[in-house]
Amino acid sequence: MMMEKQFQNSSYSVTAEPIRVGVLGFGGLGQAAARVLAPKQQMLWVAATDLKGYAYDAAGLNPDHCIKTYHSQGSLGYLEPTGILSNQTIPDLIAQASVDGYFLALPNLPNTFMADVARKFIAAGWQGVLVDALKRTSAVEQLLELQEELQAAGITYMTGCGATPGLLTAAAALAAQSYAEIHQVTITFGVGIANWEAYRATIREDIAHLPGYNVELAKGMSDAEVEALLEETDGILKLENMEHADDVMLELAGICPRDRVTVGGIVDTRNPKKPLSTNVQITGRTFEGKISTHTFTLGDETSMAANVCGPAFGYLKAGVSLHQRGIYGLFTAAEVMPMFVS
Amino acid sequence: MMMEKQFQNSSYSVTAEPIRVGVLGFGGLGQAAARVLAPKQQMLWVAATDLKGYAYDAAGLNPDHCIKTYHSQGSLGYLEPTGILSNQTIPDLIAQASVDGYFLALPNLPNTFMADVARKFIAAGWQGVLVDALKRTSAVEQLLELQEELQAAGITYMTGCGATPGLLTAAAALAAQSYAEIHQVTITFGVGIANWEAYRATIREDIAHLPGYNVELAKGMSDAEVEALLEETDGILKLENMEHADDVMLELAGICPRDRVTVGGIVDTRNPKKPLSTNVQITGRTFEGKISTHTFTLGDETSMAANVCGPAFGYLKAGVSLHQRGIYGLFTAAEVMPMFVS
Repeated sequence: MMMEKQFQNSSYSVTAEPIRVGVLGFGGLGQAAARVLAPKQQMLWVAATDLKGYAYDAAGLNPDHCIKTYHSQGSLGYLEPTGILSNQTIPDLIAQASVDGYFLALPNLPNTFMADVARKFIAAGWQGVLVDALKRTSAVEQLLELQEELQAAGITYMTGCGATPGLLTAAAALAAQSYAEIHQVTITFGVGIANWEAYRATIREDIAHLPGYNVELAKGMSDAEVEALLEETDGILKLENMEHADDVMLELAGICPRDRVTVGGIVDTRNPKKPLSTNVQITGRTFEGKISTHTFTLGDETSMAANVCGPAFGYLKAGVSLHQRGIYGLFTAAEVMPMFVS
Repeated sequence: MMMEKQFQNSSYSVTAEPIRVGVLGFGGLGQAAARVLAPKQQMLWVAATDLKGYAYDAAGLNPDHCIKTYHSQGSLGYLEPTGILSNQTIPDLIAQASVDGYFLALPNLPNTFMADVARKFIAAGWQGVLVDALKRTSAVEQLLELQEELQAAGITYMTGCGATPGLLTAAAALAAQSYAEIHQVTITFGVGIANWEAYRATIREDIAHLPGYNVELAKGMSDAEVEALLEETDGILKLENMEHADDVMLELAGICPRDRVTVGGIVDTRNPKKPLSTNVQITGRTFEGKISTHTFTLGDETSMAANVCGPAFGYLKAGVSLHQRGIYGLFTAAEVMPMFVS
């Protein structure tokens, strides 16, 4: 009780009503988002879309029910009794649903996709909070061009709010505080997934970073072609100098030029155990002239889903706080402290 | 140029004019703050106080000059040509100086001291940003009682914005994002200082945490008594279950009840090398039911001064951004993302 009372008194407190949340996209990430949301008191999961349909229930959706319908029938549009089939699921949902904030758990490809979705919200005259877990620098740059339109529309858009960019970028921005100058930010991730087919889009995004591949090539690969590639590499994808928006986000936050930020990692598509502990190292010079490195390391037992969806909803809550104060426009995970959602 | 341009476009950008900063207190921490500030483009150090005098120069103070005067003559009041001797340095400086934000680099003892200073700013009708690096829970609780008065006065007060609480508390708040529930936050610090006499107040604050000591006893110790105690322990202070405001700050941020937060550490008063790497471990349960631990570790080469003053000015900059938007009241380091000061 004491805690709740003090929390309510905080200048950053949100209303007692739960935040009504929608999830756009219902692949591996969207489904994980539904499971992350379900037990939360401060948020209510009311809406979701996939390519062929959507579901909206002001009283809240049931993750088991939704996931089962999606797997058995191929779309949330078949959900009883609230599912609706549509060939323009996002505009239809925006028009129908009362939602405070959407998590865009959509494929990152093509790079213009998330900005196109943002334009749909602007065009619809919708006001609220949008959160993405975008990865590529060029995709965030597309959104930067919408800064003024988002502000004018009354939308608070939080970009790059997953694990990396997101949690680790924010950790780098925080760690930078000890230094007068930042020399290097190195993000190294380890991802282990038992079954890559649960993350078809994500794995193609990773493949696009490999030498000899690009976004178009990776997106066009059949499942059999992905399988054949993974057969060659024993299921391991080793990624270096990836195009990752951590760089532009840290540059925008005034921390360091983007060329001092590097992202790489190892993805094991056949083993849920992480091949290495995901971490970010921040090297800089202190005011006394000492060179040192802070390190933020994620616990190996935390899944990609936990490290992406948790921050996404933490930033969504922070976005609602900004939106309630009339603060609109584009923000990155490196600029705003996410709020814990209980 | 690109970086500067984009930074200016950011919704959180500050004005091109440097932030005018005052430092209250000119012991070890205040002097380090002056050295941290000196090279910064985005801040200008214009004011400082000690017990017996103050200095204010709208064009900026020189750290070497100030520190030399303080050491040779005992007060900034003797600084030529701007020093003024006073027996009420803080109210006198508030009345005279044009300052956007003050860093309260004042002794933490007695526990009511920082709240008393805040009341002086309120009484003077001053508006701007105040930042402290308070340590004790009870001291932050004193400030919590001023929440409404600070809001009404138009003051944005950032509390607990040093290293711990501060940088490590914010890292814990960030790390919490991966978890559905937080079980334990454990902060363990290592401090190495070559010469404790440069940090007389800080060392007494540490001694007050030892079994058999309290704030009053520690504050009343002569230098010889401190020396005798350190002789017994080979210069090592081992601190456990310290009363540290990280607990109330994480509770206020809604992350976990305060009894799940523990702070301890080892201070070596005879060796600048840290006896262990300062770190915070955040253990929680993910939405899938996994128990895991994230760890944020500070580089050993970063000094207490770098880890306290850097964040303090980062939070001061964030506070100015809030203040410019008309957002007043009390905030903690766990609620607001500090902004990098270049």
